[in-house]
Formats: sequence, structure tokens, C-alpha cells
Amino acid sequence: MTLDPLLAVIEVSAIFVSAISGLIEAFRKRMDAVGVFAVAFVTAFGGGTLRDLLIDRRPLFWVQHQGYVWLVLALTLIAPPLLRATRHHVVDRLLQVTDALGLGLFAISGASLTLAAGMPVIIVTLMGVVTGVFGGVMRDVLCNEVPAVFQDHQPYALCAFCGCWVFVGLNGIGAESWLAFLAGAGTASGLRLAALAGGWRVPPWPPDREG
Amino acid sequence: MTLDPLLAVIEVSAIFVSAISGLIEAFRKRMDAVGVFAVAFVTAFGGGTLRDLLIDRRPLFWVQHQGYVWLVLALTLIAPPLLRATRHHVVDRLLQVTDALGLGLFAISGASLTLAAGMPVIIVTLMGVVTGVFGGVMRDVLCNEVPAVFQDHQPYALCAFCGCWVFVGLNGIGAESWLAFLAGAGTASGLRLAALAGGWRVPPWPPDREG
Amino acid sequence: MTLDPLLAVIEVSAIFVSAISGLIEAFRKRMDAVGVFAVAFVTAFGGGTLRDLLIDRRPLFWVQHQGYVWLVLALTLIAPPLLRATRHHVVDRLLQVTDALGLGLFAISGASLTLAAGMPVIIVTLMGVVTGVFGGVMRDVLCNEVPAVFQDHQPYALCAFCGCWVFVGLNGIGAESWLAFLAGAGTASGLRLAALAGGWRVPPWPPDREG
Repeated sequence: MTLDPLLAVIEVSAIFVSAISGLIEAFRKRMDAVGVFAVAFVTAFGGGTLRDLLIDRRPLFWVQHQGYVWLVLALTLIAPPLLRATRHHVVDRLLQVTDALGLGLFAISGASLTLAAGMPVIIVTLMGVVTGVFGGVMRDVLCNEVPAVFQDHQPYALCAFCGCWVFVGLNGIGAESWLAFLAGAGTASGLRLAALAGGWRVPPWPPDREG
Repeated sequence: MTLDPLLAVIEVSAIFVSAISGLIEAFRKRMDAVGVFAVAFVTAFGGGTLRDLLIDRRPLFWVQHQGYVWLVLALTLIAPPLLRATRHHVVDRLLQVTDALGLGLFAISGASLTLAAGMPVIIVTLMGVVTGVFGGVMRDVLCNEVPAVFQDHQPYALCAFCGCWVFVGLNGIGAESWLAFLAGAGTASGLRLAALAGGWRVPPWPPDREG
Repeated sequence: MTLDPLLAVIEVSAIFVSAISGLIEAFRKRMDAVGVFAVAFVTAFGGGTLRDLLIDRRPLFWVQHQGYVWLVLALTLIAPPLLRATRHHVVDRLLQVTDALGLGLFAISGASLTLAAGMPVIIVTLMGVVTGVFGGVMRDVLCNEVPAVFQDHQPYALCAFCGCWVFVGLNGIGAESWLAFLAGAGTASGLRLAALAGGWRVPPWPPDREG
């Protein structure tokens, strides 16, 4: 597929951005170099690893692509200038856009692997969302915080969820697999970007007046 | 087995009650709809999922019974009136009784699957307890609390533990499997109900004067 | 191998010491007997269990050696006098030395199992470190703390990491497996003991002036 080089660039960038979000959180907690690496690693690979454990798929993503492990090690070593750079407005915006693209890519990759394993569609969409968001959940658990994705009221998991349903739906009506993949990932990433641009909010649940 | 419809009712009710305990905890943490669903889901299925990972059993319980995933999704959507209802004394008492029945059912189901996998009896009882209580442990970890089951000094895991030994013991002396199941689940649920009724306490360990 | 009895003694001692570190932490959190056992168990076996899940190895270490489960149960029962004893300076020092020996043994055991599973060297070293330190990480997550190994600025995971590279390097140049094992474990344990004796520190990352 001629899209492969583009997808590889998005994948590397998305791992890079996830790892950086781990670096930032670990830095805030005043961790040492070991903690910074561990949290960056878990943020980047935790979602895919949990999915692989749940659907019993081996080798794990990062065992298969060991270059990515070296990438996170290298990122940890250059964390000091990296973290300074993330304080610039332009860099921060770039990280958000890359993260949104990565969310779509990872969610639909996860959904796709689960579909290939023959699981029912509700499980396929759940696994897509798990792949996209559980790295961040594990980061927050290791940093002793309530997971931001459950509590910051910004649409993130929901964007992945919608993208997964688009993917599953197009597959269900027999669309080409590359089309279903692109439409699903595009929906997830597009919704995430729109949510960021528009400041969309997920309400507390139950909503306040019920509380 | 003629008990099957009854067991199915208990199973659905127990999942329902576990999910509600997740809803309540997530609501206390001011989570959004995504967090409420995730915590409810993990509370309902976390214990069985951990057991299945540890004994390498697939498909996972909730992959096999995908209806239960839809049940938790539906529960999340109707959380506002549900949570209002749980504030009534009668409903609260009903939840406790259902939870006690579910504890017995889940613990002995977990023990039974582990026994069928040919594991030693100490592992069988541990897996029974894990199935019964680790959903709640994961709920508390995600909500950034010390797990209540480790710290609230109410007999819960211990009730499951005793029930599992009754199940294992009756199996060991060659009792019919349905009898062992019922006696084990009855012991666990009965002890839990007695503990609730009598206000039994598990001491801190080591006990205070040693502290 | 004539070293086997010695290794068995170190293994039992290391499990014993890990479990005690769990007992101490659970006691600090005022847990009940159930929590104390659960935290001791997870501290002792969590790292190896995570490794086995990740490399898909069964039966799990503690399922294979069920005697160790009984050991942790027995330790929990005698926790009151045990915890009193750990307050003596000599006992505390003994625990640190035993823990350092256990770190080397467990890290290189984990690396060795991963190497035998045919994984690449970076994964082998990572799994060695995971085996050595993730029991403590899980202990701290269950006790609702930021994992000490990520934040206390004492060399621990790094000692295991260095030992694993020595093991992998010696294997790579075709050394006898017992020699690679001993040299790796000796490096990890020796570095840990030197770090304790010399009060070595791991810097926060990025270092302060970058903060």
C-alpha cells in the first residue's frame, strides 16, 4: 500500500509524542532518570500492550519493533532540552496535532488487530479505545493521579470510540480495508482536532444538577 | 442443571451491582461519562479478567458474553436516575445483599475454572478470591484510593476465601460438583451477609498494640 | 550445577525480604490482615508475574512453586513479631543486603528466561529489570504512592540494568551460562550494595537547573 511510509511517519511521531507526555508528567513528580524512562515507556506502549494481553497476541508491539524501545531510551537521555522546547507555544500546538493523529492511528490499528482476531464489534471498538487511551491511564496511575482521560472533561476516548465505529461500520458493509482504516482514523483524529479547536467539553456524569 | 436460570439471574445482578459500585466511586471523583463507563466496566469485569490472564484462559468472560458489555454501557447512560435511587435506604440494602450473592457466585466460578485448569488447591482458592475482589481493587486504583477491600476492616475477601476452601474441600472428598459449588458460594455469601448483619470487623494487622 | 542449593537459599530469602517490604508498607497504611497479605504477595511475586504475562510464559512462578504462596501466608500470620524485629538496626541492615542479593538473582533469572524465549537483547535487559523492580512498583501503586523506585533517587533499577547487560554481553561472547549468570547477578547485587554503602544518588531528570 502506497500509504505505508506516511503511516510509519505518523506511528513514530505518535510514539514520540506519547513518550513526551510521559516525560512531562514524570518530571512534574520530580522523578529520577529511571522513573522518567519508565513512565515515558509505559505511556507510549501501555495501551497496545494491554490490548495484546487481552486478545492474547504475541509478540508484543514493542518486542516486534525493538527500535521503538531504543527511541524512548534516547528520548529520555535528551529530555532536558526536549522539555524546555515543549514550553514554546508552537511546539505545544504541534504536539497536540501529532497526538490527535496518533490517537486515530493507534485506535484503528488496535481495532483492526482485534477484528482480525475474529472478535465481536463491540469488543473491536473497545480494544481500539483501549489501545488509544490506556497508555495515558497507566501513566497517571504510576504518577498517583486520577487518569486525566477519565476526568478532564475533554473529548479524547470518545473521539477514538466514534472513529472505531466508522471503521467497523465500513468493514461491515464490505468497504476496502484501507478505506475503512483511513476513514476511521480520520474520524477519530478529526474529531479530536475539532474538539481542541472548539473547546468542546464532556459533561460530568451524572450532570451537575443531578449531583 | 436446573439451577442454571437462577445462577444466570444472580450473575447478571452481580455484574449490575459491581458496575453500580464503580458508577458511585467515579461519580464521587467528578469523572466525565467516559470515566464513569471505564470505572464501571473495570469494577464489573476486572477480577475475572485478571484471573483469565493469570490462568491463561481465553476468550475472556466479557468477550464471550458481549451482552454484558452492552449492559454496562446502558447502565452508564441511565446512571443519573440510578445513582439517585441508590440513596434510598431500601435500595442500598438490596445492593448489599445482591453484592454478597455475587461475591459467592464469582469467587466459586473463579475457583471452579482454576480447578478445571488443573491447578493446586492454594492457587484455586487464591484465584477464587481474585475473581471476587480484584474488580473493586482496580476501581480504587483508578480512582486513586487505597483499595477499600484491603483497608476498610470489613470481612469481604475472607468470606470468599472461606467459601473457596469449602468448595475445594468438598471437591477433594468427591462431592458432586453442583453441591460443592452451591456449598462454597453459599458459605461465601452467607458469611458476607452475616458480617454485614453483625458488623464484624477484620483487625488492623499487626493489631494496634503492636503498632 | 553445584550452586543450586545456594541459589535456592538466596531465592527463598529474597522472596522473604520482598514480602516483608510489602508487610511494612501495608502496615504503614493501616491495612487489615487481607491487605497485608495481598500487598506482601504482590510485592514478592508481582515482577515475575508481569514478566511471565509479557513473554507469555506459563505456569507462573508462584503457581509452579506453590510452597512460596504458603510462605507468604505464614509470613503474614507472624507479621507482628516480624515487624517489631525489623526495627532493629542489625535486622534492617540484613534486610538490605538480602534484598540486594535478591535483586541480582531475580533480575538475571528474568533476563535468562527472556533470553531462552529468543527475544532481542534490549527486551532481555528490560525484562530483567521488570522482574527485579515491578513487585515494588505494584506494592506502591496498591498503597497509593508514587513508586519509590521511580522517585527515591537511589540506584536500584539501574543496578539491575547494568547486571543484565553484563549477563547479555557474556552470553553474546559465548561464555558458559553459569558464568554469565553469576557475573550478571554479582554485578547487579554488588552495585546495589556499593550504592547503599556509598550513598550514591540518581539525579532528578532533567537535573534541577533545567527545571
